Amino acid sequence: MNDTAQAVSRPPERQAFYDNIAPYRLAPLWERLHTLVTRTPITPALPAVWHYDENVRPYLMQAGSLISAREAERRVLILENPGMQGQACITHSLFAGMQLILPGEVAPAHRHAQSALRFIIEGNGAYTAVEGERTLMQPGDFVLTPSWTWHDHGNDTDRPMVWLDGLDIPIVRLLDASFMEPSNADSQTVSRPPGDSYARYGANMLPVDYKPARASPVFNYPYERTREALTTLSRNGEPDAHFGHKLRYVNPATGGSPMPTIGASMQLLPGGLTTAPYRSTDGTVYSVVEGEGETVVGDTTLTWKPRDVFVVPSWQQHQHHARSEAVLFSFSDRPVQDALGLWREERLQ
Amino acid sequence: MNDTAQAVSRPPERQAFYDNIAPYRLAPLWERLHTLVTRTPITPALPAVWHYDENVRPYLMQAGSLISAREAERRVLILENPGMQGQACITHSLFAGMQLILPGEVAPAHRHAQSALRFIIEGNGAYTAVEGERTLMQPGDFVLTPSWTWHDHGNDTDRPMVWLDGLDIPIVRLLDASFMEPSNADSQTVSRPPGDSYARYGANMLPVDYKPARASPVFNYPYERTREALTTLSRNGEPDAHFGHKLRYVNPATGGSPMPTIGASMQLLPGGLTTAPYRSTDGTVYSVVEGEGETVVGDTTLTWKPRDVFVVPSWQQHQHHARSEAVLFSFSDRPVQDALGLWREERLQ
Amino acid sequence: MNDTAQAVSRPPERQAFYDNIAPYRLAPLWERLHTLVTRTPITPALPAVWHYDENVRPYLMQAGSLISAREAERRVLILENPGMQGQACITHSLFAGMQLILPGEVAPAHRHAQSALRFIIEGNGAYTAVEGERTLMQPGDFVLTPSWTWHDHGNDTDRPMVWLDGLDIPIVRLLDASFMEPSNADSQTVSRPPGDSYARYGANMLPVDYKPARASPVFNYPYERTREALTTLSRNGEPDAHFGHKLRYVNPATGGSPMPTIGASMQLLPGGLTTAPYRSTDGTVYSVVEGEGETVVGDTTLTWKPRDVFVVPSWQQHQHHARSEAVLFSFSDRPVQDALGLWREERLQ
Amino acid sequence: MNDTAQAVSRPPERQAFYDNIAPYRLAPLWERLHTLVTRTPITPALPAVWHYDENVRPYLMQAGSLISAREAERRVLILENPGMQGQACITHSLFAGMQLILPGEVAPAHRHAQSALRFIIEGNGAYTAVEGERTLMQPGDFVLTPSWTWHDHGNDTDRPMVWLDGLDIPIVRLLDASFMEPSNADSQTVSRPPGDSYARYGANMLPVDYKPARASPVFNYPYERTREALTTLSRNGEPDAHFGHKLRYVNPATGGSPMPTIGASMQLLPGGLTTAPYRSTDGTVYSVVEGEGETVVGDTTLTWKPRDVFVVPSWQQHQHHARSEAVLFSFSDRPVQDALGLWREERLQ
Repeated sequence: MNDTAQAVSRPPERQAFYDNIAPYRLAPLWERLHTLVTRTPITPALPAVWHYDENVRPYLMQAGSLISAREAERRVLILENPGMQGQACITHSLFAGMQLILPGEVAPAHRHAQSALRFIIEGNGAYTAVEGERTLMQPGDFVLTPSWTWHDHGNDTDRPMVWLDGLDIPIVRLLDASFMEPSNADSQTVSRPPGDSYARYGANMLPVDYKPARASPVFNYPYERTREALTTLSRNGEPDAHFGHKLRYVNPATGGSPMPTIGASMQLLPGGLTTAPYRSTDGTVYSVVEGEGETVVGDTTLTWKPRDVFVVPSWQQHQHHARSEAVLFSFSDRPVQDALGLWREERLQ
Repeated sequence: MNDTAQAVSRPPERQAFYDNIAPYRLAPLWERLHTLVTRTPITPALPAVWHYDENVRPYLMQAGSLISAREAERRVLILENPGMQGQACITHSLFAGMQLILPGEVAPAHRHAQSALRFIIEGNGAYTAVEGERTLMQPGDFVLTPSWTWHDHGNDTDRPMVWLDGLDIPIVRLLDASFMEPSNADSQTVSRPPGDSYARYGANMLPVDYKPARASPVFNYPYERTREALTTLSRNGEPDAHFGHKLRYVNPATGGSPMPTIGASMQLLPGGLTTAPYRSTDGTVYSVVEGEGETVVGDTTLTWKPRDVFVVPSWQQHQHHARSEAVLFSFSDRPVQDALGLWREERLQ
Repeated sequence: MNDTAQAVSRPPERQAFYDNIAPYRLAPLWERLHTLVTRTPITPALPAVWHYDENVRPYLMQAGSLISAREAERRVLILENPGMQGQACITHSLFAGMQLILPGEVAPAHRHAQSALRFIIEGNGAYTAVEGERTLMQPGDFVLTPSWTWHDHGNDTDRPMVWLDGLDIPIVRLLDASFMEPSNADSQTVSRPPGDSYARYGANMLPVDYKPARASPVFNYPYERTREALTTLSRNGEPDAHFGHKLRYVNPATGGSPMPTIGASMQLLPGGLTTAPYRSTDGTVYSVVEGEGETVVGDTTLTWKPRDVFVVPSWQQHQHHARSEAVLFSFSDRPVQDALGLWREERLQ
Repeated sequence: MNDTAQAVSRPPERQAFYDNIAPYRLAPLWERLHTLVTRTPITPALPAVWHYDENVRPYLMQAGSLISAREAERRVLILENPGMQGQACITHSLFAGMQLILPGEVAPAHRHAQSALRFIIEGNGAYTAVEGERTLMQPGDFVLTPSWTWHDHGNDTDRPMVWLDGLDIPIVRLLDASFMEPSNADSQTVSRPPGDSYARYGANMLPVDYKPARASPVFNYPYERTREALTTLSRNGEPDAHFGHKLRYVNPATGGSPMPTIGASMQLLPGGLTTAPYRSTDGTVYSVVEGEGETVVGDTTLTWKPRDVFVVPSWQQHQHHARSEAVLFSFSDRPVQDALGLWREERLQ
């Protein structure tokens, strides 16, 4: 949007014209066309990595002593893309943060138009409650709190619980469609036993009367099941050159993404694998579950180990290298781009 | 279509007219309108039960000594509805049969436009191969061989293997759309290890590049997983008055039925439960997995125990009574009726 | 289903076995497999033509003096396929008939699960009323009375009105899903002016609050508009080798077929054109709007001129020859076969 | 995003913490949660009107003498929302501009990921070419150049031609999915006669082999047809309290919006009508085709007459008053919000 350069060479009569029309809320498209409609995506986002042990966990714990979960409503450190400071996003269209809930704390119930995912990083057995059902969270679990569902979190264990939050805040902001409602009570009344949703919707079966909704009725995809599937696939065949062994999470009632604005995947990279160069228009956030390695994004090398988070911006060519067998969780806005016909990818050799 | 009664009272000039126009392939609709377009469904099918131990298994074993699987191509005893003799169907629109494969036998590879389901009744570990992948079958497993997929069966165990076949033969016949192709080889080359499909498609995840098809890519829904889900549901809440605890099998890539012409469900009826009166337009075939009880269809009482098969015709009011905790598998043409906007049900108290 | 031939060569112990199991409603599949699951479609339907002026209209008018529209409920002569006598169908899955309504008559209001199309053959300005709106019918108009919509017909003109009826009676019969309800009144109360539906749904626009249904909300597709489109296409480009210039009618709210069980098309064949050989699994009924020619179906030649009806059964190779510029309306069960994944075609050169 | 107010009252140890974590690209969500996730939409957009005759046309003509269409690539004056200066958008998510093409000029061929609509304001008979077919434009016509379709414009008449452009630039920008490609030639080769698409896709029929795409194959919806439909509706019944007589443009092959990111409607308000208060989350751009009146948006009154453009931001309650019979064209991002499950409306009395 910076058009200083052009301004320099602008004939004076044109500048005068631009000044004349500005009060009428008119502006010349031809001075900006090529920054608005670029030949390929020019994202403000930069590749970046957050090292959990060194640079995230210590500050998260410090935040734990600085503010309570109740006061904060959500005690989250935003993972802010260095290319978009102050904008509270990790890619151009998505928010990510790291949430801490300490033993005995609750993050009070509310609901909002924004869709949220929780990817569990540390701790065992704290809960997320969604629409009256609690699920106990374990590292590697993928948990949903879809748009406009009541949700709260609580930690009845004796250890801190940490997860990665992913939300579509910038998308809802662009669409001017934010709604939020706090609950009167901190915690929802539990109306269904834990595991009920998974039994009801997660066994490749659905209740006979169930009508599909936009978001998945399975709200915890346990890592145990995901890892078992990936292990089987890695035994059964060769990895894909660009993806290794990669599965995307689905809403079993539609086959679509778990939530309409955010897609998520888990991939296993055999130790030693370097993936072939790839790029796509959905800037992608990765959370490392197992293994060590690095991802080369253009000129930048992001080194990672378990619990680290890194981001690959839109349309930047990249390759993953797994030093040891690695498992990577990832999420992006791909369902939005698919729905709007905008998603593209390029698979190089 | 029998219009003898009307014929009696027909004025002679009308009969003369009908005789005159017949050579021109013309016939009066008004003489038949009310048998063609009935006020409610008038099905030729009758309620019926097949008792496995007493009346099916002995004859199936006798068939085993009378003809080989290879000669028979498929050694199947048709379960023929007593209201439609000679028509090879169990409901008006569906075929059912009981298939036997003896130790060492193979049922050679072929493919056809007809969709088939296999519901495992007896034996452990014989295989069905679909498109290059074998699955080992256990009682209660629900196995698919969708339209135009290569499939063969083989029994490498030392016991007979029996399953219930369900096919859409009458539907394909009405649409004049039957195609069949035998394979050159008895058995397909195995190109993927057993369990590969389930890992790839059955964990509420899908391969990133997978494009949904009409039929489910999961071709064995193991009873272990199904029973576990039903057990959880029965612990967590009250049974539905009409269905008990009932889940329908889905294509996880679409949320639709596993195959476009046949829907299938599994339901758990707590011991002692009598379901509330119900009827729907999809005549339904049941296979008893666990438990004993009876189903009252109009004036007919069908008594059942494990491995029995029974059929409830379209629009006939019925109630199930479970003497002990029962698990019933069922299938019908409901996906067809749903797709065409014809399905109706009535839930009475 | 005739298996006399096999019976002859059947070993006596097998026949004894078949006799033994019959009382238990069991039958050997292997004696019938190849008639049930054929390598290609073997339809009982035969190609046939009905010459309107010579063999249909005279009898229809005779029927007009023999029975009133009110007594008949619908004064229709069934066009019965010569290969399926007594079965009231023109293809295996569809019904066709020719309906007459005389000046001053009404065909009283009713509704039924069966979907019906009306293709106007003769007369100008009698009405069909659907759900409270009347449409005046002209030759070449394509009129819908979708499943479970109230409909009645009336002729306030001074000439007889004749149209071709197409219904899905055999499909609804196979599915045991027939429902019918007569109205208390002969004619529905008119609640919307003629043309309202077309304005509301037919201009490539829809009411902002409209929720799509299975059947098209446009219930009269006027020939004037259809002919204008075909005329433009025939001016703008070369005809397709197999179809000439061919358009299918759509539900503008979904892009799907106008009704879920019946698809319909209109095609223009330039004078002199002989289409390339073609076959598909949907047996198809044609009604000639303009032009003369013949259609060769296998060894049979069907000669046609305006107002004639002819039928091409499933999977029979055929070619149309237009002696003069011809316009053919056609309908078939293709939407059913598409929905169930059974439709196939073969385009030869 | 301005959090100065909170900063004031921030305890110093918290501010120190925030300063410490900033270098690690971490930031406290709790300081921003309520500006990121608002209780109701807080849009930066303001209601505004552009009076064509007084404040747009004169400057557009001046632009015509200042820069050629070829040099400008597109000679467009951006209609910039006064609440978002320098951001080249009229609502938060959409771009609008007024394009001029003078006699003898061409706007050279290119294609881009951004979807564009053209709503014709002034002039008769200049053309837009899309994928090899030209359409001649008349005032009130709604013309599409969907994502990644080649398009160019030319004026072979002797009068200036002006239209309103609507694009999804901010959406594509947020998703980092912009692609653009110029053509080697100024104008595309014309491969199909004018009107071909409308004949082929616009008559509630589709070519038999047509596979639906995201965008409508009808790329000019002529005002003549639209006005005729609205005139009929206004004769046939009462206006809706909130909308008058309102139809939305559809892709006739899907029933969905003409393009996946932009929905468009035309509504007729009878003279004297004041619509009931209404708000929805899709900020909406209006172009006045006929009539005079005003729209009250919260405390702001926007007065309009033919050719004026005005904008109602997201979730702002508004009422239209038509002094004379009025016809309003409008467009918004509603299809995006519908696809993502975010759209809401409120109809007050």
